[in-house]
Amino acid sequence: MAATKPSLPKGTRDFSPLEMSRRNYIFTAIKSVFELYGYAPIETPSMENLSTLMGKYGEEGDKLLFKILNSGDFLSGVDMEGKDAKKLTTAFCEKGLRYDLTVPFARYVVMHQNELTFPFKRYQIQPVWRADRPQKGRYREFFQCDADIIGSKSMVNEAELVAIIYDVFKALKINVVIKLNNRKILTAIAELIGAPEKIIDITVAIDKLDKIGLDNVNKELIEKGLTPEMVDKIQPIILLSGSNEEKIQSLKKVFQNNEIGQLGISELELVFDYVKLMNINCDLELDLTLARGLNYYTGAIYEVKAKDAAMGSISGGGRYDDLTGIFGLKNMSGVGISFGADRIYDVLLDLNLFPEQLASLTKVLFCNFGKEEEAYAIPYLSQLRKSKINCEIYPDNAKLNKQFSYADNKNIPFVVICGENEMIENVFVVKNMKSGEQSKVKKEELISFLKVNI
Amino acid sequence: MAATKPSLPKGTRDFSPLEMSRRNYIFTAIKSVFELYGYAPIETPSMENLSTLMGKYGEEGDKLLFKILNSGDFLSGVDMEGKDAKKLTTAFCEKGLRYDLTVPFARYVVMHQNELTFPFKRYQIQPVWRADRPQKGRYREFFQCDADIIGSKSMVNEAELVAIIYDVFKALKINVVIKLNNRKILTAIAELIGAPEKIIDITVAIDKLDKIGLDNVNKELIEKGLTPEMVDKIQPIILLSGSNEEKIQSLKKVFQNNEIGQLGISELELVFDYVKLMNINCDLELDLTLARGLNYYTGAIYEVKAKDAAMGSISGGGRYDDLTGIFGLKNMSGVGISFGADRIYDVLLDLNLFPEQLASLTKVLFCNFGKEEEAYAIPYLSQLRKSKINCEIYPDNAKLNKQFSYADNKNIPFVVICGENEMIENVFVVKNMKSGEQSKVKKEELISFLKVNI
Repeated sequence: MAATKPSLPKGTRDFSPLEMSRRNYIFTAIKSVFELYGYAPIETPSMENLSTLMGKYGEEGDKLLFKILNSGDFLSGVDMEGKDAKKLTTAFCEKGLRYDLTVPFARYVVMHQNELTFPFKRYQIQPVWRADRPQKGRYREFFQCDADIIGSKSMVNEAELVAIIYDVFKALKINVVIKLNNRKILTAIAELIGAPEKIIDITVAIDKLDKIGLDNVNKELIEKGLTPEMVDKIQPIILLSGSNEEKIQSLKKVFQNNEIGQLGISELELVFDYVKLMNINCDLELDLTLARGLNYYTGAIYEVKAKDAAMGSISGGGRYDDLTGIFGLKNMSGVGISFGADRIYDVLLDLNLFPEQLASLTKVLFCNFGKEEEAYAIPYLSQLRKSKINCEIYPDNAKLNKQFSYADNKNIPFVVICGENEMIENVFVVKNMKSGEQSKVKKEELISFLKVNI
Repeated sequence: MAATKPSLPKGTRDFSPLEMSRRNYIFTAIKSVFELYGYAPIETPSMENLSTLMGKYGEEGDKLLFKILNSGDFLSGVDMEGKDAKKLTTAFCEKGLRYDLTVPFARYVVMHQNELTFPFKRYQIQPVWRADRPQKGRYREFFQCDADIIGSKSMVNEAELVAIIYDVFKALKINVVIKLNNRKILTAIAELIGAPEKIIDITVAIDKLDKIGLDNVNKELIEKGLTPEMVDKIQPIILLSGSNEEKIQSLKKVFQNNEIGQLGISELELVFDYVKLMNINCDLELDLTLARGLNYYTGAIYEVKAKDAAMGSISGGGRYDDLTGIFGLKNMSGVGISFGADRIYDVLLDLNLFPEQLASLTKVLFCNFGKEEEAYAIPYLSQLRKSKINCEIYPDNAKLNKQFSYADNKNIPFVVICGENEMIENVFVVKNMKSGEQSKVKKEELISFLKVNI
């Protein structure tokens, strides 16, 4: 067979050992915190029936789904006339790759509803696939890390998700600001001015206040089609400032006659109260310009930004009142949070926050000087492994500098030298690869020496 | 939107929390041992170019590849005349789902050869997909757990893989027999009788010796087309018995004039010698009937069986001399091992070997009696989490029996009750869900009480 010059599909990546260690560092931090709060892991298959996926992500989403060709004789019975791409796709493909973790979760909850105990708290860390145009930081295969609780309307859940965000980023040593909003407040603003379709324009404009000033914000609102009366009405909202408590007091006045606005305010207050009880020192900020997933969320909306890195949102989520309705299970309210592993990776790399020891999985390398020396060394190698210390013997009797550069490249911190001289003296020479220091250690003291020094 | 009744593509599975804990128990055991021996993790994308995958698994394998429809306007420029399925597939699909971990690994090594340090030891635990007919224990999406070292011909690698197998199954408490053979011995047998195409028939027949006896084995060999002279020549091989050492001595006589046979024997001897040096007490058995992956392996062949369960091979592997040649990198000898996670799962389940505590991720549930009681309890919940103890508060003020059955269903071992009475007395009541025992604990002693009892 002629050699194929190998390549990867665009937008996909290999992860080498160092990248794996760093990614696992992130995943482990997230998993531990999810479990600390009682969220349990599930996994769903990479492929779902297209009937499960189609129509759940809008028309654009349907196009971005990776579709899997039916196996077997997929052409039989297909009318090839007309060349209608959509019809042919349906005839050829019944399955697609997971596009996010939320729709498969909803499908899972509905299919397993009789086995599950509600409220059901699950987390899920798996890759998703989107046939998007690849670009820096955007891949066609990437991991999502989601936690959701479904079947409880209590705001203690919202507050615990704030605590989860706080704990995860504390563990990763990233300073973050957690922004919180409530969809009901946005709805109330739309009701206030009587123009629900303008809500995105309004939040986008308000978001620019610091940069362009009040006059320009108001100008932009007029340009977007708001009447001067509408702009007048939302002045208190544009000018909202101060502590969360002060903002809430202002909002109470604005929405004193608006039922949904009051509901949103009381939800926000409850979340702040619970967070206070949890006694966590987090930077939690009420931000009315937060409008992510507007047509999706019905209550709380979260977004997290790293303070010390120029990076978009590294985590986000919210409450949705009827997620499983699309699969026939009504009245299941849920709230969830998603961590963006790739962006968190980039932030940790930029800020040089990955622990140094992630680079070395193997702690000790035994050099190889040939058969007799192997026989001298291997029993100690095995003992070291019985002590759960990751170690290797260089498998071949290669030149010593080759063996040392193997240790260097793998960032192995200790090399054990056991040549003819060491055998005669019944010792090992242990080299600390960082300091360069060499220690002569009695044979039977090798394990305890290494245990102390690693 | 009308509700879609949800289902899963055939041959795929959801993993619920308990299954996840059990699967992670297996993966963690395997990973820890891989790392103990210096193998480092990599991951490759779920999708590969079809040019990477096609032709690597035989004609049958090509059919079992899941192919991914090109995104965008995949019909433009395609000649629809003729309806040739293979041509259309090529026009529609450039990508396929990973079929195993070995070919992507070879592709990875060739693409990253300038960054890698050889010998390169990697492990990889990822799902693979095959469009096979689903049946009990056979899925269309399943996980492989592979470790391979590439770029070293030393038999110390073969021996360490034996030690890895031993350590993994010791950790999982499964009694196994590790069967070892060498492809070169099989080649030598074929040379001995001058009929290389009969080697599978011969190993299949020999394998039945215990069941059907020598006469019937010989009869079967004649039926399969061996001449009586051939059958005569391999009698010493059929009747090979005794310890590994005795078998090797017999083989030395049989192959005293056969070069490849002698090479195979000396490789086997080296492996046994190294295993002895490692001082592991494993049941390692030379088994000439082992012929797995015959057209693939060139040296050692392994297979592992559970002694106490009726189950096929739960792990296997071997040496291949030219894996990366298909992608243009010649002379890279490698040896590897693969663990079958699904079969290991079934063995552990059958033998009731999963640790009981896997069932409970959350250790403590705080009951919820309403707003004031929440305010009393939540600070302690947070403290418990600061002590890294997984705990939850039931989010709603539901009936107590509902809250207790939540704890039961999640196998939460301790429930903390904090109602009106407890608040008055400044205590918590802690119920041990297994023994039923209830303890009244002073408020400020709750954390230390739980730490001791969990």
